[in-house]
Amino acid sequence: MSGFGLDHLPYGVVRFEGRNRPVVRYTDRLLDLSTIDRELFAGGTLDALLAAGRDTWRQIRTAAAEAIQADRTPLLPLADAMPVLPYTVADYVDFYASEHHATNAGRIFRPGAEPLTPNWKHLPLGYHGRAGTVVVSGTPVHRPRGLFPSAAGPLEYAPTRKLDFEAEVGFVVGAASESGVPIAVENFPEHLFGLTLLNDWSARDIQGFETAPLGPHQGKSFATSVSAWVTPLDALERAWRPPPPRDVAPPRHLDDCDLPGGLDLELTVSINGTVVSRPPFATMYWTAGQLLAQLTSNGAPARSGDLLGSGTVSGPDRDQFGSLLELSWNGTQPIRVGDGTRTWLEDGDEVLLTASAPANDGGRLDLGEVRGRVSPARAAVR
Amino acid sequence: MSGFGLDHLPYGVVRFEGRNRPVVRYTDRLLDLSTIDRELFAGGTLDALLAAGRDTWRQIRTAAAEAIQADRTPLLPLADAMPVLPYTVADYVDFYASEHHATNAGRIFRPGAEPLTPNWKHLPLGYHGRAGTVVVSGTPVHRPRGLFPSAAGPLEYAPTRKLDFEAEVGFVVGAASESGVPIAVENFPEHLFGLTLLNDWSARDIQGFETAPLGPHQGKSFATSVSAWVTPLDALERAWRPPPPRDVAPPRHLDDCDLPGGLDLELTVSINGTVVSRPPFATMYWTAGQLLAQLTSNGAPARSGDLLGSGTVSGPDRDQFGSLLELSWNGTQPIRVGDGTRTWLEDGDEVLLTASAPANDGGRLDLGEVRGRVSPARAAVR
Repeated sequence: MSGFGLDHLPYGVVRFEGRNRPVVRYTDRLLDLSTIDRELFAGGTLDALLAAGRDTWRQIRTAAAEAIQADRTPLLPLADAMPVLPYTVADYVDFYASEHHATNAGRIFRPGAEPLTPNWKHLPLGYHGRAGTVVVSGTPVHRPRGLFPSAAGPLEYAPTRKLDFEAEVGFVVGAASESGVPIAVENFPEHLFGLTLLNDWSARDIQGFETAPLGPHQGKSFATSVSAWVTPLDALERAWRPPPPRDVAPPRHLDDCDLPGGLDLELTVSINGTVVSRPPFATMYWTAGQLLAQLTSNGAPARSGDLLGSGTVSGPDRDQFGSLLELSWNGTQPIRVGDGTRTWLEDGDEVLLTASAPANDGGRLDLGEVRGRVSPARAAVR
Repeated sequence: MSGFGLDHLPYGVVRFEGRNRPVVRYTDRLLDLSTIDRELFAGGTLDALLAAGRDTWRQIRTAAAEAIQADRTPLLPLADAMPVLPYTVADYVDFYASEHHATNAGRIFRPGAEPLTPNWKHLPLGYHGRAGTVVVSGTPVHRPRGLFPSAAGPLEYAPTRKLDFEAEVGFVVGAASESGVPIAVENFPEHLFGLTLLNDWSARDIQGFETAPLGPHQGKSFATSVSAWVTPLDALERAWRPPPPRDVAPPRHLDDCDLPGGLDLELTVSINGTVVSRPPFATMYWTAGQLLAQLTSNGAPARSGDLLGSGTVSGPDRDQFGSLLELSWNGTQPIRVGDGTRTWLEDGDEVLLTASAPANDGGRLDLGEVRGRVSPARAAVR
């Protein structure tokens, strides 16, 4: 059985015969959702569905499954349709929830210091990224320019020499929360519509120069790629796992130690067809419920369309690291890709993120892939 | 003459008789812009105007001035109308463009170290803030909760004890730029629709605990207040000034040393009616043109509705500092407010930002004020 069976039915939007059509994907065919609810999908995006809340999500999912099973409606061929970004990204917040990744990054960026900053185990750290440059899988990513010290010493404004990927999971917020009312950590399923994969493209030289004291900005803001398909939470009933043990008790508003808030997603990262890593999402220290609880803990509401990145998913082992920063240890240890090696991404390289999870029927489902090819830097303006 | 004369005509949106109406403000009266162009303002926001570009901005401004002078259309009384947030905030990016502020903050947060990080004079540093919590002047701001070490030592999740304002200028992007094509530093007037004041409310204890290594996040993301009125760039022809001398040459893509890219705006900050600071915007190290050039320098496009904060405006003198962090030197030196003193904001305090600038007719105009009162923290969820 394909990873896109009846137990999955992820949502997306495709351009087909001149119109953007919200659809669910079933194997390699698509059900046009306007046949289920014309009004809800009239905008040509998933925005109204996301905002409508969990009861509607379940009604639409049930109706879509029934329509497919009854073979009532002709399905569109996936091959003829071009997926587009299926929802309007409200705010994009990228977290840093993998202890293995944060430890690796700390060792690389702050050698000699404690790898984890003193706050790391007390709250899921995150920062706002650029919502306007979130792009759908398949969109080429131009090598960005930026300001960084060159090998020779002087500062230059040039195309990055340290282009990287970050393999992440994206959480798509559906129902907004109320301003001033934090989301309780166990209530995240009321607000979280579904999951995607996410590639947080990163230019390590630009990021390295800019990052103190305000954090990453233009080393990241040029592009973030997400899946064309959003896997609804209802398709992941059998994927929940207890989070890894925490050696520091989380604060009370983040206490989910009794909840199976972790997720058994097995990611793979490929460059030009060579698998370079298999990050296990179940090793993530902070859970989706904690990310939403923390995001809203200061009274800020979650908005429909908010996109939360998990942060780079890295496991404990070398072949489970979710970025070239870690895989090549900041460019010092090349990894094998096809017949050659890589420390950082080269022009023409294609990065592919995939993931599978336990499906409700006992098999496995595939999250929508994230694919992106590196295009050369564009000509400088001056 | 009021600061809202014919030479000013800032834009806003008011709720009046059950509808949101885009208007221009003339003294204490409002011209309904749907009388000028029904279609452009049908959405009840300024969004379509912003996106339309500079020629349209000028046509509408000229037509509005003519309609007011000809006394053709009855004007609405400002007193009967409730201003709302006039545009949809796309991405919100907050910069850090005052050398005096960055130096003060460095001295306070990193005592013993160089106050400015090594990157500071090479590019305008900034970070993305939360677009979803930008609110219009007059909106009460609840004291946020967060996680920080208490005086006693242990970490607690509690209402902030160090609530602060930051007096800033906001730049509202109108015409989007093309993906991959950075905005040349001298071309910012093609993209920048206008100016507002901006209060970047800050919880210094939450910010202090979270900020390494990813930058400020939830110490800021609970609320950002902006003016109800956007002053168009065309009203500021006589306000441009040469930027202050730079002791480090900016990189070529940010070189505006021959342009009068600075702005002569005189800000005042009041708490409960006591003026506590008069920050001079003309002292800002980085200019609006440089902020837009840097934002787009990695290929990320500027979107219509992007809001750029200048960062706290602080002059060289003690009575020109734009935050309580600096005015009370991190709570160690109380300042006088009315009959009492303040180190940080108390519940019930009202912060008012105002600013004036040279007007085209030789007088002065007033930017739209930003007013916000601190409400007590809301009850905790758990």
